[in-house]
Amino acid sequence: MRDKCRVFPCALLCALSLLLTPLAGRAAEAPRVDASRLNETMSAMKAFGAMPGGGSARVAYSEANLDALRYVEALMKEAGLSTRIDAAGNLVGTRPGLESELKPLMAGSHIDTVPNGGHYDGVVGSMAAVEVARTLHDRGIELRHPVEFIIWSNEEGGKNGSRAMGGLVSPQEFDLPSLGERRLGEGMRFLGGDPGALASVARGPGDAAAYLELHIEQGAILDQRDIDIGVVQGIVGIRRWNISVEGMTNHAGTTPMDQRRDALYVASRLVTLIRDEITRVPGSQVGTVGRIEAFPGAPNVIPGKATLSLEIRDLSMERIGQFFDAIRVAADDLARETSTTIRFEQFYESLAAPTDEHLQAMVADSAEALGLSTLYMPSGAGHDAQSLAAICPLGMIFVPSDGGISHSPEEYTSPAAIANGADVLLAVLLRADAAID
Amino acid sequence: MRDKCRVFPCALLCALSLLLTPLAGRAAEAPRVDASRLNETMSAMKAFGAMPGGGSARVAYSEANLDALRYVEALMKEAGLSTRIDAAGNLVGTRPGLESELKPLMAGSHIDTVPNGGHYDGVVGSMAAVEVARTLHDRGIELRHPVEFIIWSNEEGGKNGSRAMGGLVSPQEFDLPSLGERRLGEGMRFLGGDPGALASVARGPGDAAAYLELHIEQGAILDQRDIDIGVVQGIVGIRRWNISVEGMTNHAGTTPMDQRRDALYVASRLVTLIRDEITRVPGSQVGTVGRIEAFPGAPNVIPGKATLSLEIRDLSMERIGQFFDAIRVAADDLARETSTTIRFEQFYESLAAPTDEHLQAMVADSAEALGLSTLYMPSGAGHDAQSLAAICPLGMIFVPSDGGISHSPEEYTSPAAIANGADVLLAVLLRADAAID
Repeated sequence: MRDKCRVFPCALLCALSLLLTPLAGRAAEAPRVDASRLNETMSAMKAFGAMPGGGSARVAYSEANLDALRYVEALMKEAGLSTRIDAAGNLVGTRPGLESELKPLMAGSHIDTVPNGGHYDGVVGSMAAVEVARTLHDRGIELRHPVEFIIWSNEEGGKNGSRAMGGLVSPQEFDLPSLGERRLGEGMRFLGGDPGALASVARGPGDAAAYLELHIEQGAILDQRDIDIGVVQGIVGIRRWNISVEGMTNHAGTTPMDQRRDALYVASRLVTLIRDEITRVPGSQVGTVGRIEAFPGAPNVIPGKATLSLEIRDLSMERIGQFFDAIRVAADDLARETSTTIRFEQFYESLAAPTDEHLQAMVADSAEALGLSTLYMPSGAGHDAQSLAAICPLGMIFVPSDGGISHSPEEYTSPAAIANGADVLLAVLLRADAAID
Repeated sequence: MRDKCRVFPCALLCALSLLLTPLAGRAAEAPRVDASRLNETMSAMKAFGAMPGGGSARVAYSEANLDALRYVEALMKEAGLSTRIDAAGNLVGTRPGLESELKPLMAGSHIDTVPNGGHYDGVVGSMAAVEVARTLHDRGIELRHPVEFIIWSNEEGGKNGSRAMGGLVSPQEFDLPSLGERRLGEGMRFLGGDPGALASVARGPGDAAAYLELHIEQGAILDQRDIDIGVVQGIVGIRRWNISVEGMTNHAGTTPMDQRRDALYVASRLVTLIRDEITRVPGSQVGTVGRIEAFPGAPNVIPGKATLSLEIRDLSMERIGQFFDAIRVAADDLARETSTTIRFEQFYESLAAPTDEHLQAMVADSAEALGLSTLYMPSGAGHDAQSLAAICPLGMIFVPSDGGISHSPEEYTSPAAIANGADVLLAVLLRADAAID
């Protein structure tokens, strides 16, 4: 599947990149973005959907979303890109390449926010991509590949823009509500798209050379360890289950402790057991029970039923399966011990999207060349990048989120960290341009 | 407080009762109720509020409640009792005593049911009391004390009838909804009462000689052990708390396991810890968590807050306090270990109402004299009897509930068990009449 976007052996690549693009690969000569110009655009973006108390309500398909998209499109045009809104409502700014037979490199992110969101999630990667385009334009740097700078539509409400390119959006989704007032199909049209022509957006394996995305971490790992750049190993896979525990409803006054089949007590044992199984072995896997309910739910009635959710995330779908199997075996033992029934029903799966190892190395090398510290890490959150996993190699760069706060008006990443991320994005783009055919 | 209704030392009493009431205390001569007549009235009661699929919807203050009350009043009149509806809507049938200075003995229960209830809860004790009155009347048995046979109003919706006699109903309650269509004050009037005159119903310490109540167990202990009669040691006290656990809401994908302050995980540890503390020492105490909620309650969000209920019941309020203290100490340790905050707020207390030890002995002796097996046990459920704890000594008799099922159309107690209970009630009434001054 990946023959067309094959990445050369790394050692050879490093040598080649030094020969082909004198600006890349040597710290002293690495081009840098204009950090203050970049952060001016970050500030300008705050105006679109600003909330009185701070933060952003720039949900997908809103007036504020459209206004912001027009602002970004104008910046793209200034940077010499030819722009268009595709059928899914994505803004695509294209810069031609020197070698006409090469597939495009892509870089982008999103500018829509959650309803009570911040100013950084998506915006950092979007404005960094625009700044990279401006830097290439200003410096007259010519690349072998065409480059598409993309602002994906409706990331927060379902990644519909990037999923359209992955061929993953079905027409049934058009009638679904978005996070704002418009339904998805209506929203695509509102941004200038055409849901009826969505097939025109879809790409197949090898239809792009690579996709690069800079994003805030949305976790606290980089911030706590004081590291500049996260080298993203991939976007974790997710599986979610509904669990039901069936015991027996009974009178809380007249039923002795040793005769109870208390579904909430068993559910509680299950919650602690899940954590034990998830943390039994080292790794970045996470397991979460976020929802629980006991029935009938009165203080004076022993619950006969309890329902809870289980979510497991890991870079490897196989490991997710192994953790789940271990939980299931332990749950079966618990059910036998307590004379209850425990059932698991999966209701959601999102496949893991590993990033390309060569692009990971380019992120790490580029950062080091810029004097920035790095950490290899998974992305626990989902991103547009994962929608393109079947099309081309993925590369992702993280910059720190202060306190790990995200999807909140308190979300913050410093101007210096944003500039670091944009510098790395630019450097990786140059390296990828040189290395990938 | 109990000087007026003091119970003689038991040994002396037994001797006295043999002298004074030749019918009581000797198995061969113990009078028996008419078991088939009793069970005919049990069957007749099913007609009032019968549900199409079985069971009873005879909620307090309903037409069916009033119709049933009139039926019982007619039976009382046949038994020679002078009847009245008191201000609280209680039906009181009085039989005069030989010694005019003695305070009345009381016996009764309730005939109202929960909305989807059965035919036995309350009804067994009510019809047994009526059958005892009929038996006394038919046999011309004269008692020293006047006896009041009482059908308490609205047991299931708040014990308002018996609590009125305890002086425990405040006028603010009149506007509260009942389990049916009428508010409490309106309902009392509907049954023939007068909420404005409720003070006339209230009695003080010593205003009665004793209160006796037969009731179905509403638990499975007698049924499982195949025991005929429960000698009720008292009605358990109850304390209820709302517990809140505060941790930190976070992204379930980006927050490593070792950095979580997961309020639901801590709440789950608390649920298991509560069970551990309650079962650490032998006894009939019970502790229940019936309600739980996690916030925000999404599968992909680590809960920052969880709320749960805690209920502890025991015959001793002091022991309830000790169990709670132990739970609280363990919860404090847990909160420290998990960097969370755990708060307890009591929102309900019902004081324990121990039964009188001499009346317990009379129940046990009467049952044994009738060839019935007995077990001393607490009542985990509440009963009208507890409303009278400050007025006079209490005696309670349990008969088995099949499978422990109650508050359900499946509730069942056999005709033979009901007759056993009524025989014991009659015997205890005769012994108490002889023993108490």
